[in-house]
Amino acid sequence: MTSDSMMEAGAPALRYLDDLQPGDRFTSPEHELDEAQIKAFALQFDPQPFHLDHEAAKGTLFGGLAASGWHTAALTMRLLVKGGAPLAGGIIGAGGEIAWPKPTRPGDVLHVESKIVSVTPSKSRPDRGMVVVSSTTLNQHGDVLQQSTFKLVVPRRAASPAP
Amino acid sequence: MTSDSMMEAGAPALRYLDDLQPGDRFTSPEHELDEAQIKAFALQFDPQPFHLDHEAAKGTLFGGLAASGWHTAALTMRLLVKGGAPLAGGIIGAGGEIAWPKPTRPGDVLHVESKIVSVTPSKSRPDRGMVVVSSTTLNQHGDVLQQSTFKLVVPRRAASPAP
Repeated sequence: MTSDSMMEAGAPALRYLDDLQPGDRFTSPEHELDEAQIKAFALQFDPQPFHLDHEAAKGTLFGGLAASGWHTAALTMRLLVKGGAPLAGGIIGAGGEIAWPKPTRPGDVLHVESKIVSVTPSKSRPDRGMVVVSSTTLNQHGDVLQQSTFKLVVPRRAASPAP
Repeated sequence: MTSDSMMEAGAPALRYLDDLQPGDRFTSPEHELDEAQIKAFALQFDPQPFHLDHEAAKGTLFGGLAASGWHTAALTMRLLVKGGAPLAGGIIGAGGEIAWPKPTRPGDVLHVESKIVSVTPSKSRPDRGMVVVSSTTLNQHGDVLQQSTFKLVVPRRAASPAP
């Protein structure tokens, strides 16, 4: 289920459920966001004036052009896939919580810091378990742009054959 | 802060905080998702095999090509903006919860059904308040693809001048 194509040069080894402990931390690579990316995402998925136009955004709660929260969320996912959450089987979320304490702006350089909160083997499915991960998306100034806590399905290492 | 450009032919009137009550319901237009859209989103934001390739997806938890949950979330936002949540001032989320009970598949036709859960005027800011909205994203078979509950900032109607 893992793919060599997900392993990049210098990428950390992929963790199975058995390899993870509460408190484990991971840091993603960076992504630099510009105005063109913000507007392109907004046009497709969140076409509201404060995500599309500098002038129109000035008179809104945002006070200037800001990325859609869903753009910040999608970029956070990209950064987790690109090394920020090195999980065997990929990153498969069942659900969770998300908040955007500050707007994401043109010129922000994003990275994601994640921490394993809990690791729970499945009682009914011996091949997998549930991991709760808390991820904080920050810009280059240390501003928290997104805070999320998600449940992920993570496979176990194949069981040893019975003796 | 509202924009005429958000009003489309037949679009419902935009609601201020004062117009909303718990239990109010809204239904979005539809969006038809195809394989090309799923792969394009995945390439940019969630480049994992089960979102990019039919064959690679077969051996995974998804059992076949599935959209990124963040793609479902982004399309849900699009549908809310396109009439599924007719709020004055736009749709500005502070945070919330989200879950994906079933994968979104190529050929799914999505729409969003939303319900106002609570309406709370701000104590410190008389020009606005917080509305909690529960939104369910369904396909043409009635399968629930996403369930979310988010806090939104909604402006009040301008207060009448003091007598």
